[in-house]
Amino acid sequence: MKSYKSMSREELLALQAELEKAYIDAKGKGLSLNMARGKPCPTQLDMGMDILDAIKATDSPITPSGIDIRNYGELTGIPEAKKLMAGMMGVNPDNVYVFGNASLPIMYDTVARSYAFGVCGSTPWCKLDKVKFLCPVPGYDRHFAITEQFGIENIPVPMDENGPDMKMVKELVESDPAVKGIWCVPKYANPTGITYSDDVVKTFASLKPAAEDFRIYWDNAYAVHDLYPDDKDELLEIISECAKNGNTDMVFEFCSTSKVSFAGAGIAAMASSENNLNWAKKTMTIQTIGYDKINQLRHVAYFGDIQGIYKHMSKHADMLRPKFEAVLECFDNELGGLDIAEWTKPKGGYFISFMAMEGCAKEIVAKCKEAGVTLTGAGATYPYGKDPKDSNIRIAPSFPTAEEMQLAAEIFVLCVKLVTVNHLLAA
Amino acid sequence: MKSYKSMSREELLALQAELEKAYIDAKGKGLSLNMARGKPCPTQLDMGMDILDAIKATDSPITPSGIDIRNYGELTGIPEAKKLMAGMMGVNPDNVYVFGNASLPIMYDTVARSYAFGVCGSTPWCKLDKVKFLCPVPGYDRHFAITEQFGIENIPVPMDENGPDMKMVKELVESDPAVKGIWCVPKYANPTGITYSDDVVKTFASLKPAAEDFRIYWDNAYAVHDLYPDDKDELLEIISECAKNGNTDMVFEFCSTSKVSFAGAGIAAMASSENNLNWAKKTMTIQTIGYDKINQLRHVAYFGDIQGIYKHMSKHADMLRPKFEAVLECFDNELGGLDIAEWTKPKGGYFISFMAMEGCAKEIVAKCKEAGVTLTGAGATYPYGKDPKDSNIRIAPSFPTAEEMQLAAEIFVLCVKLVTVNHLLAA
Repeated sequence: MKSYKSMSREELLALQAELEKAYIDAKGKGLSLNMARGKPCPTQLDMGMDILDAIKATDSPITPSGIDIRNYGELTGIPEAKKLMAGMMGVNPDNVYVFGNASLPIMYDTVARSYAFGVCGSTPWCKLDKVKFLCPVPGYDRHFAITEQFGIENIPVPMDENGPDMKMVKELVESDPAVKGIWCVPKYANPTGITYSDDVVKTFASLKPAAEDFRIYWDNAYAVHDLYPDDKDELLEIISECAKNGNTDMVFEFCSTSKVSFAGAGIAAMASSENNLNWAKKTMTIQTIGYDKINQLRHVAYFGDIQGIYKHMSKHADMLRPKFEAVLECFDNELGGLDIAEWTKPKGGYFISFMAMEGCAKEIVAKCKEAGVTLTGAGATYPYGKDPKDSNIRIAPSFPTAEEMQLAAEIFVLCVKLVTVNHLLAA
Repeated sequence: MKSYKSMSREELLALQAELEKAYIDAKGKGLSLNMARGKPCPTQLDMGMDILDAIKATDSPITPSGIDIRNYGELTGIPEAKKLMAGMMGVNPDNVYVFGNASLPIMYDTVARSYAFGVCGSTPWCKLDKVKFLCPVPGYDRHFAITEQFGIENIPVPMDENGPDMKMVKELVESDPAVKGIWCVPKYANPTGITYSDDVVKTFASLKPAAEDFRIYWDNAYAVHDLYPDDKDELLEIISECAKNGNTDMVFEFCSTSKVSFAGAGIAAMASSENNLNWAKKTMTIQTIGYDKINQLRHVAYFGDIQGIYKHMSKHADMLRPKFEAVLECFDNELGGLDIAEWTKPKGGYFISFMAMEGCAKEIVAKCKEAGVTLTGAGATYPYGKDPKDSNIRIAPSFPTAEEMQLAAEIFVLCVKLVTVNHLLAA
């Protein structure tokens, strides 16, 4: 296919007319498709329905470790669930607390706790003039929203195929004591789908932060979400890497079964050092008497161990793969060689990241919307919703069916072409 | 029986010798009983086991209102659960948000939200020099611990059989803008078991607080926990009373099924005005994508409506009544007429409040412990754990069996007598 940039004005005008016509046809179809959020589809959720029967009225409510799951107690989770979640993160169960139904509130509460009480004895952030967080971009809007809400300055750091720009991370973390944290989705990152390289993880682990209360927020949300179980990305385990560098307390790691069992009705965990966990416990013990241990044991009873989770996730993969492939095939066929966009080809996770020609993302999203295809708002993957290049669009193939994804992708590439041609003609 | 205070020194010495001997015998029994916390007993929890089967793998995961309980969304709870919890509080479902597994975290988060962001636009409490909360005493230690953790000054306000001393409450709330809240357990109060009178509720509803961000924390934890379903206390509904007085935004009401279904695996709710709920939502939307809707629907499926809850709670009552009666009968028989203690006779809730002779509570609790009976620490029912009279002891009859309660009560009265006699002799 011919690169748009090499086209003459006449060629572009002819193409524009053709695309305009196709766009009017597309709108006429009256579609209503949603690729906005990383929501599981009903078929995926159906795969987990037996979880609901994993603890029945006739089953013993006492865990193998002797805990009555129906009563108060066990603030930090039942040992059996700690073991299961430790398996997901590849860490020691002693480093794990199991919480409630999702990991986002654990991250929020960790920031909130730091804000009100300070991290492990440091000055509470609410008493400081300035607190900053690093935000690898494009990244997860809900992360950035947490720190934004607490008045923390979100500083974008570019991502490449190996992870965040570690030169910039190192410089900022090691020189500025106001930098208290960084948001990371280290495996199958939201939205780029890349996995941090060993070098990136090792550079993280060997940081010498200017702030004693600097912490890495390691949101391992897609730890077991491999689309190709036989060719999966491997993430270096950061907690032990940090320990090797004397940085035992530098990481909070989070994970959940939201996209394994049920979204919003799974179980979630935090892994960290003994120091950090004890610090969290000090406020947790006032905040709650404990989390839902019935649901914790329900998950243990259903999955057994990490092998059970892998087995379950390979079913998800079989169902999700065609959706990702439908989109990527459409992009390759329709946009390959046009030199107007780039996109990632993740081996797992929930997203594809699309980089349109500069200044086109907002318009593409608006055009798609007009034709019945809802996308994540352009800019959402940047702090304060501001993509300086107006280029990144997050594609979430998880919710629609493969057929719907095919249709949606066709509309999407049409809009990309049309907006880009308009852009080139206006330049 | 003869009043201890009217006894001669000789009589007291003879009694002391007799009690010492009995105490040594009691210790010899090697008991291990726990009346410390308001924990449900296994028999009570067994009554709810069918809840676990209320939503099975073969059931529809879609609510009557059309929501997929397995997926993200519905931040404020499913409508069906709002209706159920509204029934418990006697309020309009439009005034209800349903949260996660317990109400304590809702209260904590409400204080935390006020601390970090301010109430409905007021100055965040973390930016103020002084914030005060009123704490009716004796009261619930976990309430006082929340405000204490945020550096808020807890001010004790005496309770009588009608509720808090409203003259004092009114004076403090209406004169001091630093007073931002009051902790209340208005029905079957923890630990006195009394229910606030209509006059008390009406006085609350007509307060004219000096602080615009003053709120009543109305923890209706025992709303449906009647020991005598045919002779139950009735609590005036405060939200509508406040509205009558133009105080629409003055109350946060909390309730949960922790002591209805499962402790720590129930569902919990907050009722308040539209203003207050919208304020809470503004931060909730950053904190979480939503709570566990499967457990919400599980509760709706099992209980149906408030009548289903009453039916279930009458089974609890049949089981709990003998425990309360065993204690109260023992107190009447053994302590009646001795003029050395007072105690409450609640018609519901989880506690009996015992007022020993001044200066005796700590010693009584220690003596009991030595003889194998664990009680809530003396002083726990007061802010900062300081009972100025060292008199109040909270008795929690819910966990042991009726037989164990009988035994425990016998040890307890023995310790009360012995410590009191010692005290009188030392005076």
